[in-house]
Order: sequence, then C-alpha cells, then structure tokens
Amino acid sequence: MNATRTVELDGHIIDSGAMQRAFGIVMDLGGTFEIETFDVGRRKEETSYCRMEVGADDEETLREILHELHQNGANLADPVDARVEPAPADQVVPAGFYSTTNHPTEIRYDGEWIPVEHVEMDCAIVVEQSSTSNQNSPSSGDVVEEDGDGEPVRARTKVLNAIREGDLVVTDEVGIRVKPPDRPRDASGPFGFMQGGVSAERPSESLIEEVAEALVETKERGESVLVVAGPAVIHAGGGDDLARLVREGYVDILSAGNGFATHDIERGLYGTSLGMDMETMEHPRKGHKHHIYTISEVIRAGGIEPAVEDGLIAEGVMYECVENDVPYVLAGSIRDDGPLPDTITDAVEAQEAIREQAREADLVLMLSTLLHSVAVGNCLPSTTKVVCVDINPATVTQLLDRGSSQAIGMVTDVGTFVPLLADAVVETGE
Amino acid sequence: MNATRTVELDGHIIDSGAMQRAFGIVMDLGGTFEIETFDVGRRKEETSYCRMEVGADDEETLREILHELHQNGANLADPVDARVEPAPADQVVPAGFYSTTNHPTEIRYDGEWIPVEHVEMDCAIVVEQSSTSNQNSPSSGDVVEEDGDGEPVRARTKVLNAIREGDLVVTDEVGIRVKPPDRPRDASGPFGFMQGGVSAERPSESLIEEVAEALVETKERGESVLVVAGPAVIHAGGGDDLARLVREGYVDILSAGNGFATHDIERGLYGTSLGMDMETMEHPRKGHKHHIYTISEVIRAGGIEPAVEDGLIAEGVMYECVENDVPYVLAGSIRDDGPLPDTITDAVEAQEAIREQAREADLVLMLSTLLHSVAVGNCLPSTTKVVCVDINPATVTQLLDRGSSQAIGMVTDVGTFVPLLADAVVETGE
Amino acid sequence: MNATRTVELDGHIIDSGAMQRAFGIVMDLGGTFEIETFDVGRRKEETSYCRMEVGADDEETLREILHELHQNGANLADPVDARVEPAPADQVVPAGFYSTTNHPTEIRYDGEWIPVEHVEMDCAIVVEQSSTSNQNSPSSGDVVEEDGDGEPVRARTKVLNAIREGDLVVTDEVGIRVKPPDRPRDASGPFGFMQGGVSAERPSESLIEEVAEALVETKERGESVLVVAGPAVIHAGGGDDLARLVREGYVDILSAGNGFATHDIERGLYGTSLGMDMETMEHPRKGHKHHIYTISEVIRAGGIEPAVEDGLIAEGVMYECVENDVPYVLAGSIRDDGPLPDTITDAVEAQEAIREQAREADLVLMLSTLLHSVAVGNCLPSTTKVVCVDINPATVTQLLDRGSSQAIGMVTDVGTFVPLLADAVVETGE
Amino acid sequence: MNATRTVELDGHIIDSGAMQRAFGIVMDLGGTFEIETFDVGRRKEETSYCRMEVGADDEETLREILHELHQNGANLADPVDARVEPAPADQVVPAGFYSTTNHPTEIRYDGEWIPVEHVEMDCAIVVEQSSTSNQNSPSSGDVVEEDGDGEPVRARTKVLNAIREGDLVVTDEVGIRVKPPDRPRDASGPFGFMQGGVSAERPSESLIEEVAEALVETKERGESVLVVAGPAVIHAGGGDDLARLVREGYVDILSAGNGFATHDIERGLYGTSLGMDMETMEHPRKGHKHHIYTISEVIRAGGIEPAVEDGLIAEGVMYECVENDVPYVLAGSIRDDGPLPDTITDAVEAQEAIREQAREADLVLMLSTLLHSVAVGNCLPSTTKVVCVDINPATVTQLLDRGSSQAIGMVTDVGTFVPLLADAVVETGE
Repeated sequence: MNATRTVELDGHIIDSGAMQRAFGIVMDLGGTFEIETFDVGRRKEETSYCRMEVGADDEETLREILHELHQNGANLADPVDARVEPAPADQVVPAGFYSTTNHPTEIRYDGEWIPVEHVEMDCAIVVEQSSTSNQNSPSSGDVVEEDGDGEPVRARTKVLNAIREGDLVVTDEVGIRVKPPDRPRDASGPFGFMQGGVSAERPSESLIEEVAEALVETKERGESVLVVAGPAVIHAGGGDDLARLVREGYVDILSAGNGFATHDIERGLYGTSLGMDMETMEHPRKGHKHHIYTISEVIRAGGIEPAVEDGLIAEGVMYECVENDVPYVLAGSIRDDGPLPDTITDAVEAQEAIREQAREADLVLMLSTLLHSVAVGNCLPSTTKVVCVDINPATVTQLLDRGSSQAIGMVTDVGTFVPLLADAVVETGE
Repeated sequence: MNATRTVELDGHIIDSGAMQRAFGIVMDLGGTFEIETFDVGRRKEETSYCRMEVGADDEETLREILHELHQNGANLADPVDARVEPAPADQVVPAGFYSTTNHPTEIRYDGEWIPVEHVEMDCAIVVEQSSTSNQNSPSSGDVVEEDGDGEPVRARTKVLNAIREGDLVVTDEVGIRVKPPDRPRDASGPFGFMQGGVSAERPSESLIEEVAEALVETKERGESVLVVAGPAVIHAGGGDDLARLVREGYVDILSAGNGFATHDIERGLYGTSLGMDMETMEHPRKGHKHHIYTISEVIRAGGIEPAVEDGLIAEGVMYECVENDVPYVLAGSIRDDGPLPDTITDAVEAQEAIREQAREADLVLMLSTLLHSVAVGNCLPSTTKVVCVDINPATVTQLLDRGSSQAIGMVTDVGTFVPLLADAVVETGE
Repeated sequence: MNATRTVELDGHIIDSGAMQRAFGIVMDLGGTFEIETFDVGRRKEETSYCRMEVGADDEETLREILHELHQNGANLADPVDARVEPAPADQVVPAGFYSTTNHPTEIRYDGEWIPVEHVEMDCAIVVEQSSTSNQNSPSSGDVVEEDGDGEPVRARTKVLNAIREGDLVVTDEVGIRVKPPDRPRDASGPFGFMQGGVSAERPSESLIEEVAEALVETKERGESVLVVAGPAVIHAGGGDDLARLVREGYVDILSAGNGFATHDIERGLYGTSLGMDMETMEHPRKGHKHHIYTISEVIRAGGIEPAVEDGLIAEGVMYECVENDVPYVLAGSIRDDGPLPDTITDAVEAQEAIREQAREADLVLMLSTLLHSVAVGNCLPSTTKVVCVDINPATVTQLLDRGSSQAIGMVTDVGTFVPLLADAVVETGE
Repeated sequence: MNATRTVELDGHIIDSGAMQRAFGIVMDLGGTFEIETFDVGRRKEETSYCRMEVGADDEETLREILHELHQNGANLADPVDARVEPAPADQVVPAGFYSTTNHPTEIRYDGEWIPVEHVEMDCAIVVEQSSTSNQNSPSSGDVVEEDGDGEPVRARTKVLNAIREGDLVVTDEVGIRVKPPDRPRDASGPFGFMQGGVSAERPSESLIEEVAEALVETKERGESVLVVAGPAVIHAGGGDDLARLVREGYVDILSAGNGFATHDIERGLYGTSLGMDMETMEHPRKGHKHHIYTISEVIRAGGIEPAVEDGLIAEGVMYECVENDVPYVLAGSIRDDGPLPDTITDAVEAQEAIREQAREADLVLMLSTLLHSVAVGNCLPSTTKVVCVDINPATVTQLLDRGSSQAIGMVTDVGTFVPLLADAVVETGE
C-alpha cells in the first residue's frame, strides 16, 4: 500500500452500522485498514471510538475510499484546516470540491470547527466572512467563528447553480467532520421501535396511531409539520381529511404540484358530477374538461388566494391553507395542464422554494407522490423525521433509501390512511 | 327522457370498440339510446355506420353523455356549424369550451368541415382567419377554408396557457367530428399483430425483432423516430447501444431530461471509475461528486455542444447527437442537480419544445422514463406510433392507456433491450 | 378462402364487447368474415343478433378461429348435435376434445339443448345417462334430458384427472353454445357502476361501502359468501375484523392455506409477544419458533376443531369458523411449515375441495392471496360475483383478467380495508 | 435488570453486520448489554471477538432476546451441554424446542461440539446415536461424536412433520453455536463485488457475464448447479436457451412445477401454432386446449420419460433433462391443470424431494418463480450461493431477504436474460 491516511469514527458507530459500512467501503474499493484504537462503549448509552489507518495502492484509489468513508461519517484524523479554493466562474466548482452528505457537518477553519449551515446533500460548502455575506446575515441563533482578522466566519451549503465566481469553496476531504445520526436509543413511537424502515410487517391501524402520536407530539413541541401531497390523495378520497388536518392546525406547510391543487379545487367545484367520479390517473386522457376549466377559472380570479376570497373556492385542502395561513409551494412539472397562476414553473425557482420549506420542517409527511417527495427529500438534512406513505413499495423504498434512521415508510392506501390518520390525530390531540 | 340528441359513428366502429364504448358511456351515465340506423360492414374491409338518438333526464346529464361520446368518436349528427366564442382573457377559456381528444378532429365552419391542426388532447380549438394569424402561416400542405369574406379560415389546438383574450374558441359539442383510429386491418409487424397492448405474452427476442423492423421501415419511409430516454438507460448499460443507434441514423430526435444527459456525459468522463459503477438510482445520495462535477464542467464549457467541440465530451448519446445533428430537448424537473446549461428549466417552455418534437415524430420509442414519456405522450396525436419499454408494468400500462391502437408496450429490462434492439436494427437495416 | 363456417352471436353483443372480440379474433388469426344478418337492439334493454360466415385458408386455421370465437360466445349456427367420443384411457381426452370456458354452456344432444352442469374453465364436457351416473344423481333442480331410449341424459364438466376410460367426451365445436354474461344494465352497486375492472379511480371509502352493501344484500337474498384469505390479512391487522365478520354471519365459507390458519392461531396464542409483532413476510426466516410451536400444539390437540374444544384456540378467524359452523378448506403448498393436521396436502384433493366451495359461492371476496385466489377463480363460473382486494395491482389485474363483468378489483391495504369493511357491513346490515 | 446471560460473537462480526444486529436486537427488545471483551481484528483478514453480558427485566424477555441473538450468531458463552428432551408425540415438539436458522450450527453434547447436519431454517435439531439411526448411516465424510457409552452421536435437523415420538429434540438456547457466513473478503465475481443484494445498479450485460463465470467456475470445481424455473421462462422465450444450458452440461438439477413442464412440452408439440403464441399468464383462461391436450398426451404415454422415448417429446428443457440424465422435481400446486404424471401432488412429499435437491446444490439459479424459489430457498443453508432473477423487484427482494451474503438478485427480463446467459456461458466455458 503506497498511500495511507488515518480516519476516525465515534458515536454509536456499531449499532448505527457506521463501522460495518466503513469496513465494507474499504474492502469494496480494494483498500486495506489497520485498526489503531477501538474503544467500544460498554453499555448502550456509551459511545464507541475507532481510529484506523486506511491504505490503498495509489493516491487516486485512496481518495475514492476516503470520499466514500467521509459520506458515512468516517472523518480524517488529521487536525488540519479545511482547504478552500475560489470558484472559477458562476456555477462552476473548483476541481476536487467537497460534495456534501445530508448529515450534520463541520469544517475546521483557522483551527476551529465551524458547523455547516443548512446541510443538504450534493452541495458545495462555501466559507464566508459575514461582512461579505450580505444576503444571509447571521441571525441570533447562528454559530459564527471569528477569522484571524476578528471577523466572523461561517460555512454554508450552496447548490451548484447558486455558486458565484470567487466563492470560497471547500475542496478535498481534510478538515471536515460528518456525523450521521445515531439510531434512537429507546423504542417508543414509530421512530423508535421501527428504527426507520418499511413497515409492511406492522398492523396498519396500530402504525397509523403511532404516526398520529408523532404528529401531535411535534405540534406540542411547537415544531413544524410539512405535508408533501400528490394528486392520488384527492383521487383516493383523502382530500376531506387532509383539509381537516389543515383546519385543525396539524399541517404547517404544504408542498405539492399543479396537479394536486387543481384536482383539489376541481373536486370542490364539480365534486358531485359524474365527470369527477370517473376521473382517474389511469384514464386515457390526461385531464378533462373540468380540469382545464378549473385552471381557467382560477386564472380568471387571479390565483388561488383571490379565488378563495371571491368565493370560487369554498372547500378543500387549498381553501383551508388560504383560510388558515398555511403557506404552500406548488412546483411545476412538464406533465402539468395549465398551470395555475400559483404554480412555480421554473424548476430552479421551485427547488429554491422547496428548500425553504424543507429547512423549516421538523416532521415531513410524504403522501403518494414520488416526484415531489424526492424534490423535498433532496433538501432535507438526515436529522429531519420523515414518514412516507405510498401504495407502491418501490416508491417507499426509493424515498427511504436516501433518508436516515429518522425515516419510516408505510405501504398502504392513502385513501384509507388519511381518514384514519385524521381520526387518530384528533383523538390523540384531545 | 326530456333531452335527446342524435349522434353518428362510422368506420370500423365494432372492432375498434367504438360502439361498445358508446353504449357503455350512455348506460354508465344513466342515459338511453335508440338506434335509428345500423349499417354493418359485411366484410373486414368494409366500414359500419350507426345513427342513434341519445336521451337523458335533463340537459345537464345529456351534455355530460354527449361530451364523453364525443371523446370516443360519436359525433353529433346535426349539420350545424361549430360555435365559437371569444376568450374573455389571456389563458381563460369561455364557459362550455370544447376540450380536445388526441384523435383526428374536424370542425364545421360556414357549412364546411375544416380539419383541426396539431391535434393534441385537453386543448381548446381556436378558429383563425389566416390573415390574422401571423405566427403560423399556412404551409403548402395545409388544408385551408375560405370564410364568408373570402379569407381562409383555419382551426388549430391551443393549450390553456397559449390562449389570448379574444381568441375564437370552439364551445359546446356541435359541429365537431372526432375520428379515433381504427385498429390495423392486417396482422404483420408489432402494430398489427399486437394491436396495441402490453406484450408480456410474447417472447421478448421476437418482439424486439419486430420493433427493429418497425424502426427500419420508418426510416425507409423517410419518417422520423423520436426517442424518449430516462437515466435508467445509462445505469442499466444501454448507453453505448443507444449512442450507436444515433450514430447509425436511427434516431432523429431525442427527448430527455437533465439526469439522462448528465449520467451519459458522466459515464464518458468517469466511466471506468469505481464511483461510477457504484452509482445507482437507489443510492442514498441523489447524485455524487462526479455527477455535480460533470455538470460544473459542462457549465464551464458553455453547454453540451461547446463541450463536444472542446473535446470534453468524446463519446456517448449526447456526443453522437451533437456530431450527427440530432436535435434534443432536455426538460428540467424539480429533482435535478445543476442543471446543465442546455436544460430548459421552465416547465411551460419545456412543454412547448416537447410539443414541437412530438409533432415531427412518426414513431416514438419511450425508454424507461415515466415523467418524460407522459410529457411527450400528452402532445401526441393518437395516430402516431408509440413503443413503450419499461421494467415496471404499471409504467407501461399508464403510458399505453392514454394511447391508441398505435401504441404497444413491452415490460422488459432496458439494459438488455437496447443492445438487442441495436443488433436487430443493424441486421435488419442491412 | 377454402374453408368456411357460419357462427351466431346474440344478446348484448355490442356493449359486452363480444362483437368486437369476435371481429378481432377473426382478423388476428388471418380469417375473413361476411355478415349475413345483423339485427341491432334499438334500445338498451333489447338484445342484438349477428350471423356471419367465417372463412380461412385452410381447415386447420378455421378450426383455430372457431375455437377462439367459441370461447367468446360466437357459436356455430349449424343445427347439429354435439359430437362425443369415448375417452381412450383414464385422464386421457379424445383428440379434438372440447375445452370449456367459464361461461354458461349448452350442448345439443339428440336435437335438444342440454345445459352443462358445474361450468368451469379448461374442463372437458362429459355426457352421461343418469342411470350410469351413480355418483352424481340428479337433484330436483337439475335439468335433465331424455335420450332416444327414454333415459335422462346430462352433461357436466370434468377436469382432466377425473376423466375415466370410456367417458363420453364432447369433441369439436359443433352443437355447443356458450353465453358470456352481459354487463349489468343498470348502474347501482359496485357490480353495476364499476362494470368490473380495477377501481383505482374510486375513493376507497365509498367503494368499501358499496362492497359492504353487496355483502349485506347477498346475505339478505339467502346466498353464500366465500372468503379467500391470505396470511397478509393477519399480518396487516385485519384478523380481528375478519373474525368479527365470521361471527356476525357474513362469511359462509372460508378458503385459505396452512399459513393463514397458522398465523391466525399463533396470533391468538402469542399475540402480545414481541416475537409476534416482529414477524413479517419479508423476514429472513420463513417462520419462527412460535409459528412451528403453534402447529405442533394443534397437532398435539388433534386438529383445529379439537384445539378449539380444548380451549387452546380461543379467538381469531379459525376459532369463529369452528364456533359458527363455517366450513373451511386449508389447501397445502410447498411453502408450508408443518402443516396443520387440517391442511389438505395433496393438490388434486385440495382442488376438489375448493371446487365444492366455489360451486356453492354467490359472492367471493378474495383478500391478499394470489395462489388461493387463482385456485378458487379457476373453479368459478363467470356468473359468480367476485371482489378482489390486494395492495399489488398486478395481482388484482391477473385475477380479474380471468373473470367477467361480475368481477371488481380494489388496490388497497387489506389492513385498513377489512376493518373499514366490517364497520360498514355492520352499519349497513342493521 | 433481573436476568442476565453472557453471549459471544466471533468472526468478521463488524463488517458482516453481526455486531450491529446484535446491538439492535437487544435495544429493540428492551434489554441492556455490557461489553466484557472486545478484541477487534486489526486488518481485514483478522477476525474480531466480542463477549458481552445481556440483561433484561425478566427471564421471559431475556429468553426472547437470546433467541433473536442466537438467530444472528451471538452464542451463549456458557460452556454447558445442549439440553435435549424427547418429543411427546409424532410431529409434536417439546416445549421450548430450539428452532434452527439456516446458518452452520453446532451443538455441545457430552462436552464436545457436534456439527448439525443438513442445516435448514425452522427445523428442530434431533440428537441420534448412530446405532439407532438406521435410515441415515454416517458416510465417510461425516463428523461423528462418540457418546458416553462409546457409541457415535450425531445431530441433524428435522422438519416438524418428520418428528417422531421419542426423538431427542434440542431445547433452549444453551450449548448451541450458530455461525452466519462472513461476507467475501475479496471483490471478484458477482458474489464478491455485489456482496449480495439486488443489482439494479449494475449494467445488465456485465452482470450476466459475471453470473456466467460463476456458473462455469461451479462446474469446473465439479460442483452442482440447481435451476429453479417458472413458466415465465417459456412464455418469455427463454426455453430454447435453458434447454441448451441443460444440453451443454451447465444444469445438474431442475426444480420446477407442473406448469413449467407442461408449457415447455406444449411448446415443442404446438410451438408454431398461433394458439401457442397467444398463450399468456394474463390471459382470461388459465390454460387452453393445447395445454390440457399436452397433459393428456403425456398421461397417455405414461409420463415424460416414456413420452421422450416414444418420440412425442422431441425438444425443449424437459427433453434435454431426460436425454442428459438431469434429475428433476415437478412440485404440484393448487393452480395446476392436469397434472402431468411426473408431478408430485402432495406438498409434503414434494418438499422432501426439493429438500434432497437443495442439499446437493452448490449454486442455485432461480428464474421467475416465487412459489418454487421460496420452497427451494426454505431448504437451503445460508452457505449455498443463490442467483435470483425476476422482472418483479418485490419477488427478488423477498427471496434475497431470506438469504445470506451468498445471494444476489437481478431485476431483469428472463426472456432476454436466459439467451444472453447461455451465450456468455458457452463463451466463458470454452
């Protein structure tokens, strides 16, 4: 082995699977390891610590191994500063830039560890002196370091399209610490017992009760619930009960698309008609007259909020959002009819709006939409709790795979789930 | 029955299922029918004709029935003109506007039947005097009617967001004829024998050969092949062979997304690296360093075409498209990293670009992408041939349900399908 | 065309799709047709009649076409008797034997049309003189013909393994009439409005109410409900409510497997243990200690009924079946542990037991089991109503494809479906 | 904690995930642990050793925890003998019997560790003195212990229905060692690099080549290949190439069902007919005339082997099996038509026949059959290599979940997989 480096892991590194993944990465990529120290936590509340030298035949391979290890929480032991390099142009990262995970991350700058703000996967980390950062002035709760000149320094994630020429972008893997979340230490509630994972094995009704408890507890702690909803919620008959959850105050933020909002409004406008009842995702036609007409009428009113004020929209999820000041983002897609005036048709703008929602959320409920759930999931740190519900197990698996031990999935019918959840929440909340 | 109207069907209305659907619609929606004339084609090449009076308890129900009948090719018998009404505002349709199917359609104007141009489902039909239509001057092949003042009149579809105040929009169902395509009369080739439908029942290799023949025949007739491709084509190992099909001239137009293009280019840049081999849709991380870096490098080059010229991109599907002047549309989505400079991030703009592609296509090959296939499918008339390939039967079914007898589906692995198809095409084409 | 024959169709042949299928068959198989008579029903309650000559290049092809037409209700017009030939050996059918559909069927014998008893697909038809048929003496309601010697003649289906040497087996397609069921003429209840088909498009709760109504109405008519249940009913948490439906008298017959019964009993014995809660279909181990121990204890007791009497089994679906005299069949499979003493391990014996159940059933509720549902479905005539519930759309589609317009499917979570159904049934039934 | 016991783990316990699972089990079930010793392997070829005390509030919970730990390779440290108790009756296990995993297992008897023969999950372990075990006399390679009286003692698994009154059955968890297989130490071949798991991320063609290599290597080592095949292999067009693999000597044992064999033979008899081409799993009818007729003809011939000798069967997979002396088991199911005389209709007998096949196999290729693959998988020790191919990811996942690091899955089309595999095997084998 011509190239070696020393990495460290600490925390509940065995039962979180971090050690296993670390060994697996080294072996898959053809490397070697030699344990220097392994202090194992003797009891379940105690953490473990491992320090090992990783080797590879060449620097190229070693770098690959270290990158993968890093993604999984094995950090370089060297007490050196992170390296930064200026971005050569707008939207262009320097060679060897550091690409983030969705785990809590710190960088070492002038000998001090600075937390990276707004953690999100597949971003660059940009180091800023606060005085030069006019758009994001530090708010009171933020942790800020002073640099050598006494000026505060901060680090935050930036997606590629937000990179500007000259941004100081972190490169290489040195001086960076990643900390994947441990699995919960106790076994109460869906995020305890389930330890994440798909719940095909649990009786559906009892799991719904646990999700209801998690929802109520989140609200009791004064935290925020973000609901990501697809059109199937409306088709399957969950619209009334999702509207009820909004009205009762259990939904703080809504993330959806043009299709969801249109179907919800259309149901209010034409709900008793046969046309509506026959509408289906599987239908030969992508929309129908009522669908287009609904969009046209909302355009005429000037948007969803004016349409509520005009009395055009008098019920449903969007109505309750407007009436209860629940902010919503409707992200556009190339499948959309219309779209509604509220729909953000530009994908980059829509991502930015979703990013804001994701940062505010403490519990995310994803209901029957792969596209919007993935878009939201892309912006979430691994510490945010996620419940994902879909009748298609592949969708649930795909969403959970990008998550953490904080994510649980449920393969069930959203048309029976939402009503049963609303009942359970109202009961639990009383 | 207090409300009645007479409708007509003609063509191969029994074996295309049109009569069955018509009867089903009337009965499902609570109406009645009385056959006035039924002339049945005595042999398979002869068409049938049916004229029947449809009744309902009230005008509202009757209108609903007639709308559904219309969508399926049962046209009002009344020899009256189509009704038009000016759009009250931009993007707002008049009440009772006529919403199109994807079938060939004609409207009656001043006593003459005018074909509707650019047929596409869920659009409005706008009537224009050519002199007022500056953007779409009639080309030589177009059928144009003269209106009362001797000026040519034409009718064409407009999606909701293209409607402008004052546009003369067709309303109601009178004076409109829809003609769903008949099923093919003979049984050769995939579009004959299969008569559309999902082909789980056919030996995969023999069906691939038939698709290859259809591809070669399309090219021999001088017609256009549109390929709609998802990232799974690259992941599953179909990239080289899709590139080969482009190089050999069997692909005229490409419709894809930012993810497809990035994975294709990334594979050329980092293809032998382990990082690439491990990349997966199911991976916890949505992209990875190479993915972001690929986008960054293409941005630095100024786009895909300059990157090909610079030699940065030297192989793959996008490379062959640039080298062989195959136009492509990369439509953005809220899931995207980056995106690449070539990606159209605005959903409405992207739809417009896709619409242009769809109108040019004679044969569409949809490969492992639900989002882009639906977007393309939304713009296709029912007369365009479609082959849809996906490993998920639900995707194939959903895409075919919006299609016609011209669509066939294949549930198979795109990673084995594309190589076998390329081999078969090259053999057949020689 | 060197070979021709005349066939007839009557009934609601257009809206049932029979005409379309008939034309499709002729064309797919390379034949021709010439309509001789086509009398179309003028109103929805009137039937239509079609008589047409079918041609093919050779007798072989014609026979193939006629066979397929026959399966779909197009019967040979020739007023001749059915041909019979003695079976050459046990379990061996004569060459050219007639293979049944699952539709009501008659054969012409000595100039009279005799109904075929116990219609079931893929069987042979055996003609018997009652005097020689000692095992199946005609019960009062049976239709019996007298043959030339004044002895009553009857026709019934026999599966291949029941054929005995010398049995008079119907061959060829002449002298046989098949009558597929028409679609319901009105639109009330799930079997009306839905007209069969998968119900992804309906709000789940409202469809559950309609199924509940169908269940209650079946019982009110004094008819029989057969429930086919898989282990997932227990895993997903539907056991208590299925037991309740049995107790309340809404289940007359149960068809399941060793796995269902074992999980149900195990839940009663160990239900509150953690071991049980963690049990899952997806679990690495196929069963577990409790599973094996449950079977062992029931073996020790001598079977399910003695185990109920002993007090070993004190709750659950099997308990309620024993207590309420609901007969059950537990069919074995090569996946089984144990099995329980009640399990019929021989596949042919189990089929025979299932066949008896299927013949008694008027409404069949299939809950989350492909294997047992297919086995039951194989024995059902197309006139029996079927509701099929599964979270996997492919299962629902596969089961419905063998059915009729009497079958509806629901893609939902059996763990929420059964509780909601039980509530709705009890409410409706009061 | 009122109840404690000490357990040990050794081997590659971190990178195999054994430590993680052990900690997870203790925490999920509400227990505690205290590490007494943890010697970590410093390099990848070195094993680790952990000794820890596990505690719980009561003996009941502790027993549950120890049971689960045991299943995952954490063995009780106490150097005591395994406990045995006589079975109280045929097919009845003593209370507290030990239920096996599919991992290599040893029991301690008279102070010596004896390997358990024929390891299979969910069985009991029976201790036998060889003199009393007349049916299974020790062959030369078997490890046999002498008991106190100088007689050899052996331990082997028995499924529930093989238990006889008086059998000495191992109970409790003491004196038993379980050793789950480590993950492979190097990364070549599909069982190395893939480390098991579903291979959606790999290019299909390159993975097929690796499976081909594994097949060829297995043969070169003189080991046995067992193919488990479903009817879809024939429908999808893989029959000819599977027959070729049998003919070329790459298949040693075949495990299938009545449906597979019938479709294979039918294809030989009627393969070019249109009837055959239209046959499909999704077809309304479960079989068709040719299907029944094929079975009938084989019955007339007296079975598959005589039918080959008679020349009735002249090609296909079953033909090649007969001609090349490849033994096959056709296991019956309640879905079957016929069945063929070769089909074992009794589930228990069929399981026994499958068990024999499973014990002989070194590499198992499961092709598109859930039922038969589960039945075979149930009998396999975790050390047998398994490749599972299905177009349905849920099937692949379900089969792999019961496996080990020796199992890999491929989500692809068996109709393209088998031909490409046969080509690759023949190329590799040359």
